Amino acid sequence: MFLLVRNVLTAAEIDQIRQLARAIRFVDGRQSNPHNLAKKNLQADPSTPEAVRAGQIAGTAITRNDEIRNFAFPKRIATPLLSRYEPGMNYGPHADAPFLQLPNGPMRSDVSATLFIGDPASYEGGELVIHLGNERHAFKGEPGAMIVYPSTTLHEVAPVTSGERISMFTFMESSIPNQLNRELLYALNEVSALEGFNISWENRTRLQFVIANLHRMWAG
Amino acid sequence: MFLLVRNVLTAAEIDQIRQLARAIRFVDGRQSNPHNLAKKNLQADPSTPEAVRAGQIAGTAITRNDEIRNFAFPKRIATPLLSRYEPGMNYGPHADAPFLQLPNGPMRSDVSATLFIGDPASYEGGELVIHLGNERHAFKGEPGAMIVYPSTTLHEVAPVTSGERISMFTFMESSIPNQLNRELLYALNEVSALEGFNISWENRTRLQFVIANLHRMWAG
Amino acid sequence: MFLLVRNVLTAAEIDQIRQLARAIRFVDGRQSNPHNLAKKNLQADPSTPEAVRAGQIAGTAITRNDEIRNFAFPKRIATPLLSRYEPGMNYGPHADAPFLQLPNGPMRSDVSATLFIGDPASYEGGELVIHLGNERHAFKGEPGAMIVYPSTTLHEVAPVTSGERISMFTFMESSIPNQLNRELLYALNEVSALEGFNISWENRTRLQFVIANLHRMWAG
Amino acid sequence: MFLLVRNVLTAAEIDQIRQLARAIRFVDGRQSNPHNLAKKNLQADPSTPEAVRAGQIAGTAITRNDEIRNFAFPKRIATPLLSRYEPGMNYGPHADAPFLQLPNGPMRSDVSATLFIGDPASYEGGELVIHLGNERHAFKGEPGAMIVYPSTTLHEVAPVTSGERISMFTFMESSIPNQLNRELLYALNEVSALEGFNISWENRTRLQFVIANLHRMWAG
Amino acid sequence: MFLLVRNVLTAAEIDQIRQLARAIRFVDGRQSNPHNLAKKNLQADPSTPEAVRAGQIAGTAITRNDEIRNFAFPKRIATPLLSRYEPGMNYGPHADAPFLQLPNGPMRSDVSATLFIGDPASYEGGELVIHLGNERHAFKGEPGAMIVYPSTTLHEVAPVTSGERISMFTFMESSIPNQLNRELLYALNEVSALEGFNISWENRTRLQFVIANLHRMWAG
Amino acid sequence: MFLLVRNVLTAAEIDQIRQLARAIRFVDGRQSNPHNLAKKNLQADPSTPEAVRAGQIAGTAITRNDEIRNFAFPKRIATPLLSRYEPGMNYGPHADAPFLQLPNGPMRSDVSATLFIGDPASYEGGELVIHLGNERHAFKGEPGAMIVYPSTTLHEVAPVTSGERISMFTFMESSIPNQLNRELLYALNEVSALEGFNISWENRTRLQFVIANLHRMWAG
Repeated sequence: MFLLVRNVLTAAEIDQIRQLARAIRFVDGRQSNPHNLAKKNLQADPSTPEAVRAGQIAGTAITRNDEIRNFAFPKRIATPLLSRYEPGMNYGPHADAPFLQLPNGPMRSDVSATLFIGDPASYEGGELVIHLGNERHAFKGEPGAMIVYPSTTLHEVAPVTSGERISMFTFMESSIPNQLNRELLYALNEVSALEGFNISWENRTRLQFVIANLHRMWAG
Repeated sequence: MFLLVRNVLTAAEIDQIRQLARAIRFVDGRQSNPHNLAKKNLQADPSTPEAVRAGQIAGTAITRNDEIRNFAFPKRIATPLLSRYEPGMNYGPHADAPFLQLPNGPMRSDVSATLFIGDPASYEGGELVIHLGNERHAFKGEPGAMIVYPSTTLHEVAPVTSGERISMFTFMESSIPNQLNRELLYALNEVSALEGFNISWENRTRLQFVIANLHRMWAG
Repeated sequence: MFLLVRNVLTAAEIDQIRQLARAIRFVDGRQSNPHNLAKKNLQADPSTPEAVRAGQIAGTAITRNDEIRNFAFPKRIATPLLSRYEPGMNYGPHADAPFLQLPNGPMRSDVSATLFIGDPASYEGGELVIHLGNERHAFKGEPGAMIVYPSTTLHEVAPVTSGERISMFTFMESSIPNQLNRELLYALNEVSALEGFNISWENRTRLQFVIANLHRMWAG
Repeated sequence: MFLLVRNVLTAAEIDQIRQLARAIRFVDGRQSNPHNLAKKNLQADPSTPEAVRAGQIAGTAITRNDEIRNFAFPKRIATPLLSRYEPGMNYGPHADAPFLQLPNGPMRSDVSATLFIGDPASYEGGELVIHLGNERHAFKGEPGAMIVYPSTTLHEVAPVTSGERISMFTFMESSIPNQLNRELLYALNEVSALEGFNISWENRTRLQFVIANLHRMWAG
Repeated sequence: MFLLVRNVLTAAEIDQIRQLARAIRFVDGRQSNPHNLAKKNLQADPSTPEAVRAGQIAGTAITRNDEIRNFAFPKRIATPLLSRYEPGMNYGPHADAPFLQLPNGPMRSDVSATLFIGDPASYEGGELVIHLGNERHAFKGEPGAMIVYPSTTLHEVAPVTSGERISMFTFMESSIPNQLNRELLYALNEVSALEGFNISWENRTRLQFVIANLHRMWAG
Repeated sequence: MFLLVRNVLTAAEIDQIRQLARAIRFVDGRQSNPHNLAKKNLQADPSTPEAVRAGQIAGTAITRNDEIRNFAFPKRIATPLLSRYEPGMNYGPHADAPFLQLPNGPMRSDVSATLFIGDPASYEGGELVIHLGNERHAFKGEPGAMIVYPSTTLHEVAPVTSGERISMFTFMESSIPNQLNRELLYALNEVSALEGFNISWENRTRLQFVIANLHRMWAG
């Protein structure tokens, strides 16, 4: 249920966002989660024009990406926000809030995503670490890559020990809220897309019948 | 879970729609389902004024019909569209798409419907055929009659062998998405409507208590 | 969600059951549903050796049948029982009881079935009629054929107007209780069985992954 | 699953609403439920300025109340309406309608509430009585107190035998529609609020992880 | 969702159980819940012949009671056990364990019950108190009466201040695990039992159709 | 949702199983999954006394392990079976069968487990690899360690490139079939176990109330 997508951003978009990140005003990340003692990072002030612009660039890139759309069935995507971790900063294990209060009503966060902006060679530590029971699965992506993961997990950003971690994060409300359902529908859609005209018309129709009914049944 | 409703359209409305159907520009039905090789029919171009007008007449007639409302619990009804099958045309077995993209957001299709416009004596073949496992159930209605059936089924329009089949089709999003739930609530409402003041007030209250809670529980 | 299966019984088995039916003691069908005024038929007394023997023959035939197993996912099958409708007899519209009290505990009836024993030419009327909303779907099978249908429906046996209708009926508890779920799993299994080695190994694995998880999720 | 909240209204607000209640035009309560023979009371005509004003005062008071918000998870709150029961009036056992037709679309009633305005010493009878199987649980609150209860129950207002019962009623659509789910989430939130920094950070995080996922899973 | 049933035990059975209660060896109630500091009562040692005999008498009485069967849909009933509260004893607020470990496998407790043995005039305090949010509902029954309540609630036995409270308690696994579902099915069964032959056969059939399908759908 | 448990087996048990593994007759692993072309390994013939004995030792060890019981809520545990991968062998990506046919009826596989017997330094490759979308998570445990993972995933054993991989595998039917539910209940139980007497009795009771109801609600 993880999807690592490369090249969500083009090289030009990465450059643009990096320039905005240099100009932007960063504030204490706890401003948006005041009670979370585990959070020690910096976030762009979302009201600044640079944050808005960076959010637009990344939002457009995510929206146009077929892999993400096929995997996450996004209904709504929150505006991505820049964050910065300096040496010693981290975001301890936490669960994402189930609902974000957006201007046009609450948005359920089914899928979380980190979009890597900085070069992984430019900082040590800072991995996104997903807790899977007592196992840990860590990600550190190339610039422009995005890791998509279920909002249902505990996860953390490991302490940055040198350099600076620049990335963006966002949340999606999925039209298929349950993670396993989403994964099964994605798998059937893949089979249909890859084998559609290789299999008999009758079986293609059967597959479409199942896909249509599962989609209808599981939508939320 | 099928409902055949007679006289959804008045004689005058049937005439109006027939006249519009003669004036209308029909296009290849595959325009709205480009990948569906099973579809060989003609559909009104929905942007023409005649199609809009025919859709309004039929939509109004469906909306005012108590039998349909009681049976389908419609939340939204897509604008009905005219279709024409000439000899040799058919629409092979298919499942209706689970969601239609409408201007004001996606609409789930829980219930599908065919509104018969042409006289059944004027064409051969062209039955609406619902697949129920390996059984088939066929419909061919009088002008103005509408057959309502669950969008969850595989169904087809049999080949027209002579004459011309003129009908309209539409989809409804139901406030009770699950078909069996819808059927049970419909049955209880019928009992309540038909026996309401024949049974004791205490039992009427019990029935209302059950109906209210099932409606609340199953709404989606 | 109906399955008409031909040749569930061999010619020899049909003969055996017909001979047993001639020897058997039939009793008023209302013995097993005393409050059902709609029931006017005769049923074999299940304690007679002939009824036991006929039940064994039919039960064995049903159990060995792949089509039925693939379609109904039977967990338990009640012993089939002979019934006889003479002219004027019928079984008005009714819903099958949700649970049968069997010696080893209650058995849920998810799937109902009629096994035709007599020649359809030997009696008039007597169709098994399934109510689908305000539509009716009627069956009258060849000897040895079985019609399998969801126990969730209203259904009836139409009045016999001449001759004698001899058939058997049974119920199955399915390992997939919900009818639509059963139908979707059946369809995917068909695709997998028919296209299994035609599609890429990766897609075959995806299909198995979906089938295994749906089976696990929907089992009851 | 009941919550009795004292002092939802301040003394000044109670006074204001009492003055409005004296000026207001009351109409037969059956105007909003014409078929309910059990309803014998008076309700404010909701279109009068006094009713609108009283509804605003009460609505504001409910919205600002933390206890109610934590318990009911309200998504929408219907405008509270004044009712009056004179001697001999009552509202027999009934289930609240599952959906209210509001200007901006149907609102599901998950939670019902009575806000007491008059002094309980000023009238006899008139208790709000909730049916719990064959038990009855009765409420009669101080002015400004509100009793919140699940809309799923049968309930009644007992006959007023002397004096006059003045109160307001309203309905809420909850973001957690199922009552037991709502109660469990409320209990966990209480534990977290009361013990949050007393327990280890790791266990606080576990609790938040569970709360976030239950909220996401049960939201509707 | 509460049911108070009078005369579950006959006068003779009450006498028998009282005599057994005098002869029985009582042990600290915490033996069966060692970690529950809120429990301060005495329970019969279930291995003594008197406890076995009292359990048989009460179990037989519960099993033969139609009201209880219709309300609780019991699948299994745990052997009732005698308890005694002396002055100063109580059982603080607690939730019943979801599963009891019985010799033939775990039994889910959906429904809890208290069977009153002693005369309510013979002891002060000792009410069974059910928590409903921040409201409390208290029961103190006549000898032979039984109160049935959902195991999902918090409940307690209030301190006995004088005399001695003798009662029995038991648990049931219901074939309809969810409480609201159970209540709805019970209500429909009542309507059917009370109005069955007063309403038209067609509506009686509709009601049976709904009842059969809800029972099937909700069984667990 | 993974649990890596160290020292499930004692050093003595590891030795015993290794000796049995040397004596045992291994057969082609495809005997139990004849159609799975991805399976290239050896499995103990389960009918041999050595396989039975090894299964008993491992089964006893798993059953006595608190960590596993708390995490997996096992209802039934299949007898663990030895497998051996020689160089070039692997078990390609596959989903575990949803049901195993055991002598006493079908057993649902909710949780899968690998028990490592051989020293990880004694073979190269052979990791257990779980697919999580397009990410892979690999395990290679110390002797006596067991990795527990959801049967819902695709997973594989990577090719062994040198040495010999000796391990055991088993499946569990959980009393909490859904993985996320299992994880949430586990987390709450951990909080209760670790903070039970640190938090107020009232909050401990609230926590137990939630745990009991979630357990009841989610059991299957």
